[in-house]
Amino acid sequence: MTPTILVTNDDGISSKGIQSLVEVASSFGEVLVIAPDKPQSGMGHAITINQILRLDSSRLFPQQAAYTCSGTPVDCVKLGIYEVLQRKPDLILSGINHGENSSTNVLYSGTMSAAIEGAMENVPSIGFSLADYASDADFSEAQQVAEQILHHVIREKLPDHICLNVNVPKKTTTPLKGIKICQQAHAFWEDRFDKRQDQFGRDYYWMSGDFLPKNPLPGSDLEALGQGYASIVPTHFDLTAYSNMDFFKTMFE
Amino acid sequence: MTPTILVTNDDGISSKGIQSLVEVASSFGEVLVIAPDKPQSGMGHAITINQILRLDSSRLFPQQAAYTCSGTPVDCVKLGIYEVLQRKPDLILSGINHGENSSTNVLYSGTMSAAIEGAMENVPSIGFSLADYASDADFSEAQQVAEQILHHVIREKLPDHICLNVNVPKKTTTPLKGIKICQQAHAFWEDRFDKRQDQFGRDYYWMSGDFLPKNPLPGSDLEALGQGYASIVPTHFDLTAYSNMDFFKTMFE
Repeated sequence: MTPTILVTNDDGISSKGIQSLVEVASSFGEVLVIAPDKPQSGMGHAITINQILRLDSSRLFPQQAAYTCSGTPVDCVKLGIYEVLQRKPDLILSGINHGENSSTNVLYSGTMSAAIEGAMENVPSIGFSLADYASDADFSEAQQVAEQILHHVIREKLPDHICLNVNVPKKTTTPLKGIKICQQAHAFWEDRFDKRQDQFGRDYYWMSGDFLPKNPLPGSDLEALGQGYASIVPTHFDLTAYSNMDFFKTMFE
Repeated sequence: MTPTILVTNDDGISSKGIQSLVEVASSFGEVLVIAPDKPQSGMGHAITINQILRLDSSRLFPQQAAYTCSGTPVDCVKLGIYEVLQRKPDLILSGINHGENSSTNVLYSGTMSAAIEGAMENVPSIGFSLADYASDADFSEAQQVAEQILHHVIREKLPDHICLNVNVPKKTTTPLKGIKICQQAHAFWEDRFDKRQDQFGRDYYWMSGDFLPKNPLPGSDLEALGQGYASIVPTHFDLTAYSNMDFFKTMFE
């Protein structure tokens, strides 16, 4: 039976990355595109509960059923399952994100949060990101990685409630070294706020900052990307710090 | 030395829950309030990078330094550290959330995401939630739990990069049974979209749904809350599914 594949992202429906991913997904099944009508980077696992949601047909993908959504990537997954399909798809793909989602960026990433929402629904789900922020970024190698991973996942399935966080390094003249299974690196942002004044003399801020990938842990996604590998972090949504349970039992119980 | 305590939430600066938490926090240190200027429930770990941020003094807390922020709870933490204080506070407290943040709700919760952002900054951080959605919810017992936990945390510290997800059951005539250290329950939402038409005949949706806490796992926060205990889930931000690494190494490497 032809699998139904829900494709979303956080860069918005008109981004190059989702076009690239739909091209790959189409050879594996029937694609349904539901993506934000505007960029939703950094939206993490946000859902829209204090505002209405719009869902409109899109002509951007004439070969597929496609919708824009006024909300977040997680909203797109929820609308796809509970409103458009009214059942679970066979696969949820998110991306290809225009920029890296390695390390702790998984928490801020709308692209990965859509995949995590898929894992909560126990639908095999994969988020793809390309570590290249250039406006003319070349998605072709990331497409090849996506294709290779899809072959495996469709044949061998994923464990229950586990999704994949796939990052592909920026394309260079050196071919990709391969794929590495990694743990999420522990690297963090040092934020900066650029303070400006509007036309009324009132302050406002733009968030920026530096990502500090100091000494990436051996076996981490940051290390693999730095070495020229695509990284896959098997990702779940249980935030319990199990190794600290006894410490806290002594403290509080 | 008097500790500096950053207090935020996701229900917004004028909510009853943050007032309750500031009352408790004030007896432990110098409180800085930075909270959203409007409700930001369900914003998860969203940050504001495609829009400007406003940060304005608030007169709601005349005894404390207090600011409203136009962004998300995580924005509040980042602005607190990198703009207002220009250093890390000694403690970050988030809440008291007006409603439960047990189980997988931790992922959608702006309140808990603020605490997780604190853990990423390696600041001892705690999110508090009251499992009562009534507009006249009684926060007094949750305040007592917060006070008790703060006594321990200030004296004994928290392990690096670990925050606490504290949920307190709805106050009843039966006194609270105590505190239990728990794992995050695996329960999920079955979403529903209420489809309506605007004044132009155009469709829109409200997200709603049912939370399905079927057979809560023994030792989970849902079980503890159901039995009349406050639950504490020690919470981290490493989403790596370590137990599946070998499976995927065989599959992809």
